Amino acid sequence: MKVVYTPRHQAHDVGHETYLGIAIPANEVAERAELIREALEDDGGFEIVEPTEHGLDPIHAVHDPGLVRFLEEAWTQAQRERIDRDFLVADTYPSRAMFEGMSEAALARLREPRAVGGRTGWWGLDSSNPLVAGTYQAARWAVDVALTAADLVVEGGEQRVYGLCRPPGHHAARAMAGGYCFFNNAAIAAEAITRRTGEPVAILDVDVHHGNGTQQIFWRRGDVFYASIHADPMDLYPFFLGHADETGEGPGAGANFNQPMAAGTGDAAYLEAVDRALDAIGRTGGSIVVVSLGFDTYRLDPIGTFALTTAGYHEIGRRVAALGRRLVILQEGGYYRPHLGRNARAWLWGADGRPHDPASAEESAPAGAAPAAPVAGASA
Amino acid sequence: MKVVYTPRHQAHDVGHETYLGIAIPANEVAERAELIREALEDDGGFEIVEPTEHGLDPIHAVHDPGLVRFLEEAWTQAQRERIDRDFLVADTYPSRAMFEGMSEAALARLREPRAVGGRTGWWGLDSSNPLVAGTYQAARWAVDVALTAADLVVEGGEQRVYGLCRPPGHHAARAMAGGYCFFNNAAIAAEAITRRTGEPVAILDVDVHHGNGTQQIFWRRGDVFYASIHADPMDLYPFFLGHADETGEGPGAGANFNQPMAAGTGDAAYLEAVDRALDAIGRTGGSIVVVSLGFDTYRLDPIGTFALTTAGYHEIGRRVAALGRRLVILQEGGYYRPHLGRNARAWLWGADGRPHDPASAEESAPAGAAPAAPVAGASA
Repeated sequence: MKVVYTPRHQAHDVGHETYLGIAIPANEVAERAELIREALEDDGGFEIVEPTEHGLDPIHAVHDPGLVRFLEEAWTQAQRERIDRDFLVADTYPSRAMFEGMSEAALARLREPRAVGGRTGWWGLDSSNPLVAGTYQAARWAVDVALTAADLVVEGGEQRVYGLCRPPGHHAARAMAGGYCFFNNAAIAAEAITRRTGEPVAILDVDVHHGNGTQQIFWRRGDVFYASIHADPMDLYPFFLGHADETGEGPGAGANFNQPMAAGTGDAAYLEAVDRALDAIGRTGGSIVVVSLGFDTYRLDPIGTFALTTAGYHEIGRRVAALGRRLVILQEGGYYRPHLGRNARAWLWGADGRPHDPASAEESAPAGAAPAAPVAGASA
Repeated sequence: MKVVYTPRHQAHDVGHETYLGIAIPANEVAERAELIREALEDDGGFEIVEPTEHGLDPIHAVHDPGLVRFLEEAWTQAQRERIDRDFLVADTYPSRAMFEGMSEAALARLREPRAVGGRTGWWGLDSSNPLVAGTYQAARWAVDVALTAADLVVEGGEQRVYGLCRPPGHHAARAMAGGYCFFNNAAIAAEAITRRTGEPVAILDVDVHHGNGTQQIFWRRGDVFYASIHADPMDLYPFFLGHADETGEGPGAGANFNQPMAAGTGDAAYLEAVDRALDAIGRTGGSIVVVSLGFDTYRLDPIGTFALTTAGYHEIGRRVAALGRRLVILQEGGYYRPHLGRNARAWLWGADGRPHDPASAEESAPAGAAPAAPVAGASA
């Protein structure tokens, strides 16, 4: 399998994020992508290729140009305003309740502040989204990784390609960054695919967090089907979206399929949710699926609440590939670094039709049905 | 002049707030109210009275009961969830852009999360709004201070009363806390006054920050006129509201009067803005004005950007009282503690028709026209 990777993600060199008001060591660090690359290089069964540049047009097809401009300017402005931190996050956000009662016309007159703290909030969702000197460049290259992976599938004759995107993307909405995400790599790839093929496209999101950005971008679109399996937002980030009754509206009615699951969800319950998502995707048109692939569903993940195993990842990869559609597999989250490489390899082996290698995993349980942790059913 | 005060504000005992991602020593501390009380006690010209309890009804007349419930439960829940900090703030907020494209019906199905971090964001605006063990009790008493001040004016025959509210209130919206504010003391007092008198009421907000909460609560109300003079939100908190073109809608069209001013604004330019606000208030009906009184317009304030002087405060108080309406004067911000007491005394002396006492101030400039810093005109 081809793996699209560039070391340029390292420009997004993050030391801290702010969690409930306190700066803590960052979870979404450059080492993550390096560990996955090393594991795939060591494996020998993967071909690593460089991304090609795609410019701003595919980003502007999905995101507000103002967000792009802000991300490009923010760090320099923060230095000019003497924000003496190794990262930039906001403290004040345009919460919905602030504007209650205002008409659409009045809301349309709102404007982006000048001060960098205000700008960061204007385009943001949370303080766990550190912006550093190289964020914009790295985020641009993550998009190029995703679009190069899409190229290889759409025009390159590949059945499936893995794009090692970093920073991740699925929390970024049309006009908002958040949750370690700046540009929505998967949404940009899906948009490019449907424009180029004229076909509908499906996105399967198996990160532990709901991909609120992807949902928002395609909320009223019938040509991009979004299926997500994630921790119940009542308990976990992003908190405010991801419920089962969010099914899309207008032309997108029925094209958004959320499966929130309880904390503790293990392989068996998760695989049932995967089957439901794949069934739903199988009923939509199109020949390509974009996968938002997270390993923060892992049983040891420091910020996730699920209990998946390495064997489980192999089986998920196998079932997703068994759908028979071409796959553009894009990296999202996953923060337990010691097992990140082996989990990625197991997933991609499964997708490639190679058997699970228990010796490569931390446990020897048979692939598939047997969960390593107590199984909790889908909530909501 | 009667001063309504209770030591119970000290239950809101705040050590930290989070500014651009970093926990810093809190600005809105208990000492603020104590310094003002001491200065007024030492003066001898003020009579300090205790607030009486008014219950939840006047709060529910303005705020979402869910916000009240959250504020009552949050600290206990944070302890149960083992949030190991001396304050609770959120990291993730329901930013408008997250929900773009959703219909009113879909938005109405959104729900408050269970996790305390998610709840704090759901009801919040910013991370500079620390919640501690005694916040709810103190915020309830701050409302009682405001309502007792209103009682003394509406039914007690007083021409003007000063309510030493802490925590402050003007950033709190119907369904949102923020900016050191939990319940909107001024809005609750104004609502109670108009209900009891059957008259319209005006609110004059002279804190350096725009009172976005007060604006939101009365945005579509013609019976409560809101006039605010504040730092341009392009540069200063709350960033997203406070522009001159926000004038109210529906029955409230024309009843919201924002005067954003440039950084560096001194006494002379500020007093011209006060005159414009008083002219506008004078054209509305009603016999009572609620004043949201901040001293963060002070030239030495650590978070404000204006350059007002103690003599300036005396003159502002004098002009506001010269309008001839009864005044319910409620404390909002003001963070330069060494001069907080003298600034409050100067303002209230001005309102009470007593001459300015240069010996009590940090400067001997004549009251009124001469600013201590370069004057910048009103922006926007």
